[in-house]
Amino acid sequence: MTAAAADTGLLSPGRAASPAAEEAGDAAYLRALLDAEAALTRAQAALGLAPEAAASAVTEAADPRRFDLASLAERARESGNPVVPLVADLTRAVGEEHGPYVHRGATSQDIMDTGTMLVARRVLAVVLPDLERCARALGGLAAEHRDTPMAGRTLTQHAVPTTFGLKVAGWRSLVLDARDRATAVRDALPAQLGGAAGTLAAFTAYGAEDATALPTAYARELGLRAPALPWHTLRTPVADLAGCLAFTAGALGKVAADVLTLSRTEIAEVSEGSGGGSSAMPHKTNPVRATLTAAAARRAPQLAATLYGALAAEDERPAGAWHAEWEPLRDLLRLVGGAARDAAELAEGLRVHPDAMRRNLDLTGGLVLSEWLTASLTPVLGRARAKELLTETARRARAEGRPLVEPLADEPEVRDVDLDALADPVRCAGSAGVLTDRALERR
Amino acid sequence: MTAAAADTGLLSPGRAASPAAEEAGDAAYLRALLDAEAALTRAQAALGLAPEAAASAVTEAADPRRFDLASLAERARESGNPVVPLVADLTRAVGEEHGPYVHRGATSQDIMDTGTMLVARRVLAVVLPDLERCARALGGLAAEHRDTPMAGRTLTQHAVPTTFGLKVAGWRSLVLDARDRATAVRDALPAQLGGAAGTLAAFTAYGAEDATALPTAYARELGLRAPALPWHTLRTPVADLAGCLAFTAGALGKVAADVLTLSRTEIAEVSEGSGGGSSAMPHKTNPVRATLTAAAARRAPQLAATLYGALAAEDERPAGAWHAEWEPLRDLLRLVGGAARDAAELAEGLRVHPDAMRRNLDLTGGLVLSEWLTASLTPVLGRARAKELLTETARRARAEGRPLVEPLADEPEVRDVDLDALADPVRCAGSAGVLTDRALERR
Amino acid sequence: MTAAAADTGLLSPGRAASPAAEEAGDAAYLRALLDAEAALTRAQAALGLAPEAAASAVTEAADPRRFDLASLAERARESGNPVVPLVADLTRAVGEEHGPYVHRGATSQDIMDTGTMLVARRVLAVVLPDLERCARALGGLAAEHRDTPMAGRTLTQHAVPTTFGLKVAGWRSLVLDARDRATAVRDALPAQLGGAAGTLAAFTAYGAEDATALPTAYARELGLRAPALPWHTLRTPVADLAGCLAFTAGALGKVAADVLTLSRTEIAEVSEGSGGGSSAMPHKTNPVRATLTAAAARRAPQLAATLYGALAAEDERPAGAWHAEWEPLRDLLRLVGGAARDAAELAEGLRVHPDAMRRNLDLTGGLVLSEWLTASLTPVLGRARAKELLTETARRARAEGRPLVEPLADEPEVRDVDLDALADPVRCAGSAGVLTDRALERR
Amino acid sequence: MTAAAADTGLLSPGRAASPAAEEAGDAAYLRALLDAEAALTRAQAALGLAPEAAASAVTEAADPRRFDLASLAERARESGNPVVPLVADLTRAVGEEHGPYVHRGATSQDIMDTGTMLVARRVLAVVLPDLERCARALGGLAAEHRDTPMAGRTLTQHAVPTTFGLKVAGWRSLVLDARDRATAVRDALPAQLGGAAGTLAAFTAYGAEDATALPTAYARELGLRAPALPWHTLRTPVADLAGCLAFTAGALGKVAADVLTLSRTEIAEVSEGSGGGSSAMPHKTNPVRATLTAAAARRAPQLAATLYGALAAEDERPAGAWHAEWEPLRDLLRLVGGAARDAAELAEGLRVHPDAMRRNLDLTGGLVLSEWLTASLTPVLGRARAKELLTETARRARAEGRPLVEPLADEPEVRDVDLDALADPVRCAGSAGVLTDRALERR
Repeated sequence: MTAAAADTGLLSPGRAASPAAEEAGDAAYLRALLDAEAALTRAQAALGLAPEAAASAVTEAADPRRFDLASLAERARESGNPVVPLVADLTRAVGEEHGPYVHRGATSQDIMDTGTMLVARRVLAVVLPDLERCARALGGLAAEHRDTPMAGRTLTQHAVPTTFGLKVAGWRSLVLDARDRATAVRDALPAQLGGAAGTLAAFTAYGAEDATALPTAYARELGLRAPALPWHTLRTPVADLAGCLAFTAGALGKVAADVLTLSRTEIAEVSEGSGGGSSAMPHKTNPVRATLTAAAARRAPQLAATLYGALAAEDERPAGAWHAEWEPLRDLLRLVGGAARDAAELAEGLRVHPDAMRRNLDLTGGLVLSEWLTASLTPVLGRARAKELLTETARRARAEGRPLVEPLADEPEVRDVDLDALADPVRCAGSAGVLTDRALERR
Repeated sequence: MTAAAADTGLLSPGRAASPAAEEAGDAAYLRALLDAEAALTRAQAALGLAPEAAASAVTEAADPRRFDLASLAERARESGNPVVPLVADLTRAVGEEHGPYVHRGATSQDIMDTGTMLVARRVLAVVLPDLERCARALGGLAAEHRDTPMAGRTLTQHAVPTTFGLKVAGWRSLVLDARDRATAVRDALPAQLGGAAGTLAAFTAYGAEDATALPTAYARELGLRAPALPWHTLRTPVADLAGCLAFTAGALGKVAADVLTLSRTEIAEVSEGSGGGSSAMPHKTNPVRATLTAAAARRAPQLAATLYGALAAEDERPAGAWHAEWEPLRDLLRLVGGAARDAAELAEGLRVHPDAMRRNLDLTGGLVLSEWLTASLTPVLGRARAKELLTETARRARAEGRPLVEPLADEPEVRDVDLDALADPVRCAGSAGVLTDRALERR
Repeated sequence: MTAAAADTGLLSPGRAASPAAEEAGDAAYLRALLDAEAALTRAQAALGLAPEAAASAVTEAADPRRFDLASLAERARESGNPVVPLVADLTRAVGEEHGPYVHRGATSQDIMDTGTMLVARRVLAVVLPDLERCARALGGLAAEHRDTPMAGRTLTQHAVPTTFGLKVAGWRSLVLDARDRATAVRDALPAQLGGAAGTLAAFTAYGAEDATALPTAYARELGLRAPALPWHTLRTPVADLAGCLAFTAGALGKVAADVLTLSRTEIAEVSEGSGGGSSAMPHKTNPVRATLTAAAARRAPQLAATLYGALAAEDERPAGAWHAEWEPLRDLLRLVGGAARDAAELAEGLRVHPDAMRRNLDLTGGLVLSEWLTASLTPVLGRARAKELLTETARRARAEGRPLVEPLADEPEVRDVDLDALADPVRCAGSAGVLTDRALERR
Repeated sequence: MTAAAADTGLLSPGRAASPAAEEAGDAAYLRALLDAEAALTRAQAALGLAPEAAASAVTEAADPRRFDLASLAERARESGNPVVPLVADLTRAVGEEHGPYVHRGATSQDIMDTGTMLVARRVLAVVLPDLERCARALGGLAAEHRDTPMAGRTLTQHAVPTTFGLKVAGWRSLVLDARDRATAVRDALPAQLGGAAGTLAAFTAYGAEDATALPTAYARELGLRAPALPWHTLRTPVADLAGCLAFTAGALGKVAADVLTLSRTEIAEVSEGSGGGSSAMPHKTNPVRATLTAAAARRAPQLAATLYGALAAEDERPAGAWHAEWEPLRDLLRLVGGAARDAAELAEGLRVHPDAMRRNLDLTGGLVLSEWLTASLTPVLGRARAKELLTETARRARAEGRPLVEPLADEPEVRDVDLDALADPVRCAGSAGVLTDRALERR
């Protein structure tokens, strides 16, 4: 593979220069594969199946700087995976004496899967703090705007009042759901070790009394979970990653969708702290962080679908389903990593415009209050009459371009009701404040 | 909607006449929507917000047999969801006195989402026993075939020996993973209650002192979890269902993929208990259960992708993302329900042919043992020489059509090795037996 | 399958009572399967391979009203497809004498695929007129609003002026692209006939001199294209349908996305002719047609993905890939059929509010003109200075809440420029009018 | 973006070192973006809107070697697309005099979309010859094996005889379908030019009398089609690419699926010319080309789904849908490019084993002939009796492990039939030869 074919991120502003992009780049994968090889020899040494010197030699040789990524990539074509040429190079680097202890008893998939789990853990290690940052910033916003009224919108139309606090508390709860799912998955990421067909047979051949002790020792070296069974074609760990990453992208996508809507020129209730400029239009500040997060949310579900589809993998190693996992999983990790970073910056920098929220809330001349008023007048008028009255008054208010309260106040039936107090927008937002408080109790 | 447009399952043999198909049919949805409406009025009565008589009246009127599904479906077009015409019909059925307590304070989405959660719970209630049945049957097979050797296959080629027991133990572990994920999701399914924009405001207007007590009472009536927040656009419950259902379909799809491979005329290591016939070919017995399960596994990931994509739902109710959930979620429930039933029957009826496994294992003239022999001879010959010897001998054995052990036995270097004992296929399967035992300890 | 499991459309308001829903219902499939069986016997009679009386008998017996859909659906489980029980029932219905000519030489897939192509053609026959209706209505709107200025929006922000005519001309061009693609696919839909493994062997056995004449005669009976080869596992026709249907859903989804945006309470530049009401909020008129169309656009791509995935079908009939096509293809046909109907109604009823467009265009105080003014002043001031001046002036205008033209007019550099003429919004929309005219020339 | 985050193809053996990988790498995109910028200035010069010297200066400066990909990628983050920093760098490179003619009147999307179309054309320029190579090799195989009998397989089971020629003719027809679709799409790839919101307004401001002449001149410079309308949110060209690429991946995936099946150790009817080795198992030759092609076919549909989903793009430039296209489209181009190369090599090197085909055909003891014999004996015995006889005889043959013809020959009813001639496998393959001949006539 020549440099021309390399991908430096030109099409990937959503993850450019993000920690996750680094942790999931080819260099990071190379490092992880080498970490897996070194751990394998060390684990054998720990169980007395290989000399300590071999473990040291392999660990020392497994230095990513000594390997040529482009050459590995190109030579991977022959066998269909990069571990085959990597083992060749590593064995050569270790030298004649301890070379035989490189990759001993393992199959390519042991190293590839283990390396992938390491990469996933390292990416999640940078993603989770961004989710925490995002949640923290959202928590601050929700508390600050606990009683900031705004229009609740359904099917694009103003429905009834809500608060910005409740909206942001909802965003935060999704981010925390994502954090919880990602944390659980991270903590369960297993090492992979089974040998050619998952029986650990070669380790027995090489002298292990109980070969099943080896995966445990190996996982311990790597800080991964010991697998209950070799999972070459039992892809629960990959599917669990797919699910939690698609969920996270979607959760952040919800935040982005709302920010994009609320940023619209006509709505202008929030704006990104530092919007992106335009080459052609000097006045524009675009909601770039939200845009890139929204783009990630559009892609993640289909990448996850490919991974879920790979569960149905035939035999002890499938011809295609496994290979189809590598790039989509890495893409998901990078997309989610970039989106988490963008969402954290978005949340921390978000500018909120309560005046615009209030102005918009009045746009329908109070029609947005009609459900609330209907319900509130039901004890006085009965539900049927209340509904009829509000429907009629709303029609009149709209036709005459007046606030709903005005024609309503003309009606003798409601003359004893304090309509102004009733129509206070915070009051109209019902339990929004209480719900926000409770949601913020979650840590 | 006329009868002509109805779907009776003609294109759905995978779920035909399955319990899940019943529990997720339109009639089941209607019942669940009515259950939600009745529970809503009862919950209000329980909190003193509605008369007990209204609760009884609504509960009694909420009898699915009184409602016309086709008419509801057609009238749903106007508002875009079936709850609007359902509320109209239910209110009429309840009558003038208590009609005002129908759907009071709620929004269509409260009922639709709650009804969907009820359906999901009821479908999972029939799916989980099928997963258990499947796991139980697989557990029996794995124990029985703990030491039945067969070829381990990677990239379609014989690799090294394994056992049928280990393969089936792996299937079982996936089914248990599915069961665990589905159980966790089922236990967390929440009721939905928020009113027009998720603030519970109307309930306050109707007199609730603390409207947030209502969702809890409502959830209790339904046996669902009380939601932390109204989740109209916080779709964690739907995404969690998507993930566990896609996982389950894929887990069963792995079993089906293996059964299909092993059923091939040339392999014939297993066969379905009662294969399906063919109109044209009287001799054929097709692996129909595995075929239909495999078909479900091909569809589920993309249905889940649509649901993950719906996470990015704008505002307090989105214009499209929500509506796009209904059918894919139902399709997933039915697909997985049908597949679980098929997989259970498949597992219970599977016929295993150890003789064919053994015959196939010998197909490569022992080449399948070359890794094992290489490893086993390494202590004697050194790794490089062992590998070289086996590569050379394997080439010769293949060319001459002889078992690998024969030309190998000619080599003076290995004259002291008991090659026959070494080549015993169960021994070659390494830790397969121990791994199987441990996997079967999981309950 | 009991009635409880039937699907009458309760979750499908997007296609409820649409012609496409009828043409793709189970009853329509049954009719198509029977049409295929009858055509097969007639084609054999036409070639002298069966008596005319048999052709008549089968044609007469192939009356959908005589068949029990629910029973067929349930019995389809055994063999995995509905043709097997259908052939049994049809053979019985035809009677002893001519029964042997039913399905003679064919395989289930011949009938199932041919029936599916018939259904597809019939659905497209009702979808294409709706696309034409939609395009016609959009053409009228585009012509009418050729010079109606509005804000062009990019990344949610006002960018530069455009016209509603150009926007609608774009919608129309997409609908025509969809029509063209759907027409081409419809005209190429082939019959399927190959016998058990696609060799037509049984027809030779039954006496055909050149069995390859039969598919042609069969296709002629059905008004479908004669296939070049049996396509049991050469699924080009299904993939072509997938592509054109996903495209159509997306094209209509673009219209819906714009209508939803422009319908927002704050924007209010268009509204649906007859918006849907809300059970809770009497004042609301929701953009229901656009919502349901948007929902269809969210689902179609993943359904198409399942069909594209089914291309990789092994052998002469795959174990799963074929079965996985049936429901997604039908779902796509129904979704697109419903969306085309909804989009046609939407286009025909759309209310346009040029005053709101104008009001919104002024929202940024003329900042939306900054690119245009920069470019227009470049000949006078040079590009760098023009850009600098506009950037500065725009910042000032925004800060002071004044229209951009005002602070600009203060600048001595531009005192000779007729800024008011320059800032005329139709003029600012550049070639929008000409582009609209040209686009409308397309038929 | 640091080197660590770069992607050199380590996870992409399917496209490593392929021409398509080069033509779709970041360097190729950079070149295409620069080509678009240079063509834009040249087109303006051609219409007298810019000095020739500016066109020359921009063309000369637009040399990819002068630009820093990693820096561009990182700076793209601010505005959300790489064109903004690219324009800045290019303008600087052109210098003060002609710098103002860089990107004049255009918007980022004009360049990004045009560059993408150039990349697509260049990738298709290397993909199409590989598809031709593949089709040519398959044509040779089909002709050579026109009369090579083999088992036709349905639902994994032997069904009736077919020929390898017919199977390969089918593969070839799919590859030609892919070629035809890709050729049509390639020939229609349009340039993109519309300015900030697709009105071409800035070009008028800069002095164009008829700004609509500019896109035509621009397209001519680039060898792309002139667009009927600016297509910033009319994404037909991207959807058409998605469709033809997903189709191509699936078509090649069918070939791969069959090769994988036929390569199985137990079937062994074909083998890859140069199979890939295994690090652990010296005897294995894996079907690596087919495996990697199969992996591509698993991923393409979901990537296409993301692109179809991006059709529903709001406004004049969407906030996310556009950005979500870039990587999936590039991934599709690379995947299909790699798969076409692999499939061509696979087809050219495929080794066919007619003896194994024959041996397998006999595996069922002639049961595979039962449909053929039933049909052939129908004229003699009547259909019902023929079917009954064959069903019974087949059961007997299977039980006794004898070829079907033997117990059949014992039956007095068929004593006058030349069963051996009837059971000749080529004759049993019916019209396979004629169908193959006809299919090969297609060019």
